Order: sequence, then C-alpha cells, then structure tokens
Amino acid sequence: MTQIQPLRWTGSALAILDQRLLPAETLYHEYQTASAIADAIRAMQVRGAPAIGIAAAYAVALSVRQYSEQQPDRWREAVDRDIQVLGQARPTAVNLFWALDKMRAALVPVATPEQAWPMARQAAEAIEQADLAANHRIGELGADLLTGARGVLTHCNAGALATSGHGTALGVIRTAYARAPLSVYAGETRPWLQGARLTAWELSRENIPVTLIADSAAAWLMRQGGVQWLVVGADRICANGDSANKIGTYSLALLARAHGVKVMIAAPTSTIDLNLSSGDDIEIEMRDPFELLPDCYRTLQQPVSAWNPVFDVTPAHLIDAIVTERGVASQPHTHGLKRCL
Amino acid sequence: MTQIQPLRWTGSALAILDQRLLPAETLYHEYQTASAIADAIRAMQVRGAPAIGIAAAYAVALSVRQYSEQQPDRWREAVDRDIQVLGQARPTAVNLFWALDKMRAALVPVATPEQAWPMARQAAEAIEQADLAANHRIGELGADLLTGARGVLTHCNAGALATSGHGTALGVIRTAYARAPLSVYAGETRPWLQGARLTAWELSRENIPVTLIADSAAAWLMRQGGVQWLVVGADRICANGDSANKIGTYSLALLARAHGVKVMIAAPTSTIDLNLSSGDDIEIEMRDPFELLPDCYRTLQQPVSAWNPVFDVTPAHLIDAIVTERGVASQPHTHGLKRCL
Repeated sequence: MTQIQPLRWTGSALAILDQRLLPAETLYHEYQTASAIADAIRAMQVRGAPAIGIAAAYAVALSVRQYSEQQPDRWREAVDRDIQVLGQARPTAVNLFWALDKMRAALVPVATPEQAWPMARQAAEAIEQADLAANHRIGELGADLLTGARGVLTHCNAGALATSGHGTALGVIRTAYARAPLSVYAGETRPWLQGARLTAWELSRENIPVTLIADSAAAWLMRQGGVQWLVVGADRICANGDSANKIGTYSLALLARAHGVKVMIAAPTSTIDLNLSSGDDIEIEMRDPFELLPDCYRTLQQPVSAWNPVFDVTPAHLIDAIVTERGVASQPHTHGLKRCL
Repeated sequence: MTQIQPLRWTGSALAILDQRLLPAETLYHEYQTASAIADAIRAMQVRGAPAIGIAAAYAVALSVRQYSEQQPDRWREAVDRDIQVLGQARPTAVNLFWALDKMRAALVPVATPEQAWPMARQAAEAIEQADLAANHRIGELGADLLTGARGVLTHCNAGALATSGHGTALGVIRTAYARAPLSVYAGETRPWLQGARLTAWELSRENIPVTLIADSAAAWLMRQGGVQWLVVGADRICANGDSANKIGTYSLALLARAHGVKVMIAAPTSTIDLNLSSGDDIEIEMRDPFELLPDCYRTLQQPVSAWNPVFDVTPAHLIDAIVTERGVASQPHTHGLKRCL
C-alpha cells in the first residue's frame, strides 16, 4: 500500500496528481510556474480545500524563485500578480486565500532577492507539514466522537487526496476504523463523483471496505439505521459555525437531523474564516451546466439548462461538532467555535 | 412536435422505445412474444409504472394470440406461464400486477379459442386508452393545486415516457405550464439519470424550459425559494397513503417539509394497492451495484461495493396531496385516500 499523495513537491517543482482521471489512471503533471498551477486548480486536477491551499503555497514559492532570479529588482510585483491570479482560481474554499496570506506574510521579512526563494520554499513546506500534522490530530479527536458508531456516511472526498495526506473527514474515518470495525458509506457526489472516484478508491487501497450509495439514497440508508454519524470536510467555516462544503452537504445535514444521525465537520483551522459572520456571505461557486447535462443537449436548439452550484452552506444549528486540530466545538450554534480555534 | 410514445401497438406487435438510449438515440424494438417483452421490462427498455403495466397487458394479448393458435386445447396454461414470467420482471411497481390481473379477468369469459385473441387485444387496448384518459384528468386536477406556484421540482420521469402519453407528474406540469408560466426543475435522478435523459428531453421537445439539477442540490434550491411544489409519480401507493417511488423521493419529501415546499403524488388509481396496509410491506427492488460503481472497480480486488435500492417509500405524513383520475386526497395521513379512490 503506497501513501496517496495528491501533491509531490520535488524541491524545485510541484507534481500534481490529475484527480480527473482517477480511479482509472494515476498520472502526475509536473509544474514549475504559478500560472500553470492556477490553471490546474481551476481545472480541478487538484481539489479539496486544504490541498488547494498547499498547491497555491508551492505556486507562490515557485513564482518567488522565478522572479527573484529573472527580475531581482521587481520580483515582489511579479509575485503579487501571480498571487492575484491564484486567488481567482476558485472562490469558495478559504484555504486558498489563507495560504496566499501566509505566503505573503512570509515574504515580508525577506531582505534580499537571494533570501526570497529559500524563505518562500520553507514557508510552503511548513504549510504542508502543518496540514499533515493537523489531519492526524483531527483524526484522533474525531474518532473519539465516533466511539460506538456502527456506520458512518461521508460525502465528496475529504481524504488524503484533498489534503497533504490522511485527510480530514476521511482522516477521522481512517483513525476510527483502525480502532474498531465501522461500516463506511460514501455518497457518489454528483456531478463530479468525488465519492465514487476518489473516496471509494482511496479507502479501498487501504483495505477499508466502503459501500457507495447514490446521493439520493442517503435518507433511505439513514431510515434503515445504517449510519449514526455523517462526517464531512468543509471549504469555509464562518464565525457563527455555518459551514460551506460540497453541494449536497446541507441536504445530508437536514436528513441527518430528521433521523437522529449526528453531523461532524472535520477541517483544519485554516478553513475557518472569522471575517465572515455567517454563511450568507460565502460566495458559492457556480460551474459549467454541462457537468450535469448529457452532451447531446449541446447540439439541440432546446430549452434545457442546468443549475450547478458546487457548494452549499450547512447552518451551524444542524452541526453537532466541528473538529479541528485545536479541539472540538460541540453544538457550535449554542457554544460557538472557541473550543476549536 | 411529435407525440412521445414509449409504446406503439401495431395491432399485432408491440414496438418499445428503448429508453436506455435516450436522449441520444430514438430507437424502437418490435416484439411479438410475452417473454421478449418481459426481458425488455427487466432491462428497462421500457420503465415507469403505468407504461410497464400497459406493456405487460399487450404482452399477455400477444401470448393469447400465440397459444390460442398454436395449442387451442391448452392455451390458458401457456398464457398463465407467460403471466407468471411477466410478474417476475420487476417487483416494486404494482401497475404490472394490476394489469396482469385485469388481463386474467378479461380472459375468464372467453368461451372458445377463436374469441381469445380479439378479447385479449381489446382488453389491452382498453387499459392503454384508460391510462391516457386518466393522465389528462390527473393533469387538470393536479394543475389546479399548482395555481400560483412559480417553481416546481420533479424527480425521475413520470412523463409520457412512463405512461401511455402525457404523463402523471409531468402531465400535471404540462397542464399547469399551459395555463401559466412555471419554472420547471428536474433532478437528474441517479443512477439511471431518468431526469437528465428522459424528463429534460421530453419537456424540451414541447418547448417547456427545464432546468436540471444534481439530486443533492434540491435542498439548496428549496432554500433559495426556487420551488413551491415537489410533484412526483408513484410505483405503489399503500392503503395508508405511504408511496413508493424512485430512490430519492423520500429524501426530497423530507427536504420539502423542512422548507415549506408542498408534496404532490400524481398517479392513476392502478398504482394504488389496497392490499398493503403500509409502506413497510413494499418490496424494494435492489439493482446491480455497477449501475453506481465506476467500471474500473470490476477489475480490482478491492473492498468497494455499492448499495443500490432503486425505490424508497415516502410516508403519508410527508405527502400533501395524492392526485388520481378520480380526485384529490389532501393530507392523506389525516384524511385517508377515499377522495382519490
């Protein structure tokens, strides 16, 4: 069993596993410029809030290397332009902006162009390492909550493929499964099928049995008593606990509440955005209708369209626990986030 | 605009539109034996509770023709065997069994083998004609309830393709749209994509604009206020109003309740099964996991499976109205079905 790595940093380039091709094919593309990495993020070669943040951090480091060599007098302006381009790659996950801010801050004390690349590289590597440590800690804290659960449902992919490794929601599930048997269900997660293509593949490679369901079968599964917890990641957690995640999470949280199934959000603190007071302020990314529409509608002069928001917001009152590397905020709607900050 | 016909009765054969190929291709297969039609039902060339019933009725008629000619002394036994085979084609939709019972009853007064085929043929044609009339009446009654609605969501395909024409849930939507503008949303309906492939295609051919959504986006659509009604068909309605329909309907009904969206079941009385007291008694068809699983998992020795129930049961307390050709049962959980029987 090889470790699943969505990103491989060579020290001078970033290799990105093309997640559009999984599970049929495992192919890495190697990038040396920030703009190429921004394109890869936009095209969803790499996805998952923490992984997007880490990729962006390395993109900034590569930009720093390029411009501190090519134009040592004006490297900061050029890097700033790359940071702007990266910030436009995808709007919803805050980890992207968090990582860009971290990199920007790391460059402030740089005194000479020669210092820039080593410092930028170190800062990006530190972001990746901290994420991996956070995931393992989240896994332990979240698994404590799952004690006694017989079945768990997850949505989308908040696994190693979405992070530096181990995963957030799947990190919790991995750690819990290592402690005691657990039935793991994954929603296939239309339209991009992250559950079917990524989560099922990732778990199966570690011999963790996983059962795929149609997203619309979740309520029926809950009614049969198949799961006691819904465990998902997040792309942005607001100050009041409202959490943006893959489209369908809000639906699952409502259905969970109706069936007495508990809801856990597992995410690093880099996903928390205290600048937004509530989920009403989150920009929800809308993607191409043809991620949903059969191709043949392209050629017809017919009034068929699609509404394709790829995230939704789960209000805090539907969340039983938000788990970060710093702790567990239980009933965040009542008690706030301070236990996980 | 041509009339959409899932079944074309030639007078001596049944042509079935292969719905697996839609919307890319429109292809009819012509059948002259009951066993071939049973295979076509099982393989989902034709689907939709009323259409399955009508196809089965014609299958019995063709069986009667064949055996009353080939073995006039023992034709009833052979037809009975075909009726048994047809009854095993799909378990959940009661219309199949209802149609077989109707045909069996029509054959009781047959005195001579020569009378059998004309009487069987007439009985099958009557079933089809009654279904079409029922759909138009359901359309009018259901559209009355939609008065003032700006948006409506449907699931799966309960349209012309699922019936003799016009449709049940889509008949309601067609009739309502003809009276006043209405935003029509269709869930894509995994795993078979009846919404994306059939409903969107069917409505677009009549220039009724339709917007496709991922099944998991329905709650988010409801939260934006996009729809005031959920209108769906049914495969079996129990004596207490519990209704089996395509997987995901139960989920949508729960989500509708949480958002103040009303829920309408539109179905002919042939869908009502007074022999079952509640939805607990309905057999839910489980289909091939590989309707959900990506093909590449076939070749891997990995613990990936899928749970693929293709129907679920919406309890009566989540249903605001059951509409049949005989009337509207409002709040069936409280008032029962008598207004629609």
